[in-house]
Amino acid sequence: MFSGLTRRGLLSGGAIMSGLLLSGGRARADAPPGAIEYPVQPDPTKEQGRLILDDGGYGSRSQFESEIRWRYPTDSLDSSWSMTPLASGHGIITPSGLHFERHHGGIPTIDPATHTLIIHGLVDKPLRLTMADLRRMPSVSRIHFIECSGNGLTEWEKPTLKTVQGTHGLTSTSEWTGVLLSTVLKEAGIQDSAAWILAEGSDAAVMTRSVPIDVAMNDAILAYAQNGEALRPEQGYPLRLLLPGLEGNTHIKWLRRLEVSDKPFMTREETSKYTDLMPDGTARLFTLEMDAKSVITFPSGAMKLPRPGFYEISGLAWSGRGKIVKVEVSADGGKTWTEAALQEPVLNKSHTRFRMPWIWDGNEAVLQSRCTDETGYVQPTLPELVRVRGTKSVYHLNAIQSWHVAANGEVTNVHA
Amino acid sequence: MFSGLTRRGLLSGGAIMSGLLLSGGRARADAPPGAIEYPVQPDPTKEQGRLILDDGGYGSRSQFESEIRWRYPTDSLDSSWSMTPLASGHGIITPSGLHFERHHGGIPTIDPATHTLIIHGLVDKPLRLTMADLRRMPSVSRIHFIECSGNGLTEWEKPTLKTVQGTHGLTSTSEWTGVLLSTVLKEAGIQDSAAWILAEGSDAAVMTRSVPIDVAMNDAILAYAQNGEALRPEQGYPLRLLLPGLEGNTHIKWLRRLEVSDKPFMTREETSKYTDLMPDGTARLFTLEMDAKSVITFPSGAMKLPRPGFYEISGLAWSGRGKIVKVEVSADGGKTWTEAALQEPVLNKSHTRFRMPWIWDGNEAVLQSRCTDETGYVQPTLPELVRVRGTKSVYHLNAIQSWHVAANGEVTNVHA
Repeated sequence: MFSGLTRRGLLSGGAIMSGLLLSGGRARADAPPGAIEYPVQPDPTKEQGRLILDDGGYGSRSQFESEIRWRYPTDSLDSSWSMTPLASGHGIITPSGLHFERHHGGIPTIDPATHTLIIHGLVDKPLRLTMADLRRMPSVSRIHFIECSGNGLTEWEKPTLKTVQGTHGLTSTSEWTGVLLSTVLKEAGIQDSAAWILAEGSDAAVMTRSVPIDVAMNDAILAYAQNGEALRPEQGYPLRLLLPGLEGNTHIKWLRRLEVSDKPFMTREETSKYTDLMPDGTARLFTLEMDAKSVITFPSGAMKLPRPGFYEISGLAWSGRGKIVKVEVSADGGKTWTEAALQEPVLNKSHTRFRMPWIWDGNEAVLQSRCTDETGYVQPTLPELVRVRGTKSVYHLNAIQSWHVAANGEVTNVHA
Repeated sequence: MFSGLTRRGLLSGGAIMSGLLLSGGRARADAPPGAIEYPVQPDPTKEQGRLILDDGGYGSRSQFESEIRWRYPTDSLDSSWSMTPLASGHGIITPSGLHFERHHGGIPTIDPATHTLIIHGLVDKPLRLTMADLRRMPSVSRIHFIECSGNGLTEWEKPTLKTVQGTHGLTSTSEWTGVLLSTVLKEAGIQDSAAWILAEGSDAAVMTRSVPIDVAMNDAILAYAQNGEALRPEQGYPLRLLLPGLEGNTHIKWLRRLEVSDKPFMTREETSKYTDLMPDGTARLFTLEMDAKSVITFPSGAMKLPRPGFYEISGLAWSGRGKIVKVEVSADGGKTWTEAALQEPVLNKSHTRFRMPWIWDGNEAVLQSRCTDETGYVQPTLPELVRVRGTKSVYHLNAIQSWHVAANGEVTNVHA
């Protein structure tokens, strides 16, 4: 079967352009350099441009760019979520202004000059740290994804939301900077019986989660910066807990308190919420690690391919357990697979961009991606996942996503 | 001599805190969990937070953050430059809103729907590409720095500007996405005699530079995205040329034309400007590659260390010729050096963050950093550089920077 998928190195010269059918057309081949017609009116070279720093010294995007986060229509506006427009993304970094949000009690306004973090419980020296204290401590910067465990919750039983922003937009990647939680815990003198840590936020929901001590002492970060500047308010300004690879709700924002204990705290968010109902009526608790997942972001739902020819299929893959080692793409609903190119460097617990050249022949196609992480875990199909988990667990849907391409080029969300 | 510099692994438990002299103080050791006093007034948990998407779906930074780019006081506002506040940066990514600027004729406003790129000259098939054409072609995303060759031009003869924003702020790092220039040139059928390419911008200055063909066919990118979204207007929206490792003015913004030739075009920007006057009266031409350079961003000029004790020295290193392999830090004006930790992954032609624990004993100190790149090139001292280049070359000052720390903690820019 002709899938049209091609390893990048095999594309011959001219193949892209002949497939592209350039919309702009060619310049006149015989035109001398001075005779080229510029079609743009008005010609921007004939006008003085905007003056430097007329933006006040902190820039904003072009007036022609309009992508925004999309709010899932929850009943309330204070406990709600908004999703990253993955279809218009590039590379692996999510612009901070488009990072997904999940709030349980709105976004508090916190003055960093007065904010403190308390560390107490099973420690020899309880501490109260100011932001200035934290900023003076040894720091790390790491690029990590965060994903809400509810990402895709509408998609268990039937394809529901139309775009990849709706089906997968509760994940984003940033370069985070802060102090390793282990650094602070060692300074506080963490005791041998310590097994769990309660993390508590300063929001109106007083969001709390219990964190296993091995996570806390491994790669957890008390993060105060994101993409080279202070955290954004929606991301926990001035301080959030970052638990690389774990479900997003555990990355407590507006962090004000850490209590070390010998057992989990069994808060509302780990009993009533964020547990996964299984077919036998029991519920999985503390399903913290995000399983490997991938999705094609171009082409994706609600797009329309203008004509047959060359396209670069592109998407994101990530795993809460380490690095992505392979992404395969299918154009025939999973019958045949071709390995995609991964954007280097492939990072630990980070979005990984994959790309795959595709020459669409104009016939119906079903596009899918399937990733494998460094533990050997392979992203499952939806039937495989449902067989184990049923359809009522709400959280942790990481199945292969299918996009149907119709002969007229329309792309739709399907279960295939 | 006691420099106070310590390899990170050698810091013993408690050393950081005893050095920090925590300003927040300790929580009461005997306090039961429910009895902890929160000093913050008003308590943000007692107020409903801001509602989701009250920012219109594209977020902005906290009201408590105020760092901005700083404009060098040139006579005109249309040909000027503004500098990144490196002292408040974190990690390696520069927030797009704080990326340095250098404009020769202001910032044009360009509608991407009508913008085109023309490729002509020594090619078999002259092309006119729309932005839609470019976005459909095979793409890459890479993290690279850009540095203006004039970065530091005030500092040749005596220490002049007070802060690291002034002395080094004409460099920034982003994740750039676009089409490899080589992809487009191959599609256009570049001819054997091709040796240089003219790149022309759509700004009021019609900025032009000649690019060597080996650079164009190697890692040059026709970039349309920056840090996961469209380029910012100040960075060339909707299209700029990215020439990793080469001086910033060659990364033509608002790119509209590429002309392939067998010789350089000798434009104003490579004859009158952007040449380096040597002591013998000759001028270096086409000094395109940026030499390896580093600078300590914390502590840096105009800061004041509040008291002796623990500090993490931090800074950035970069090279136009590849990866940074080593950064050394001195606290005694270059008499002794200790190797700093490099933030992983270390990337090609990218800012590299280095960090070094330091226990300041309260005596005078002179802080310096010195980097080595993968070619073996070692960043020179200012006297070494001046011996070869004199003090009139304006561009390409990459000497070791010195920050003097006085006994009262004040940090100043010095030549040492």
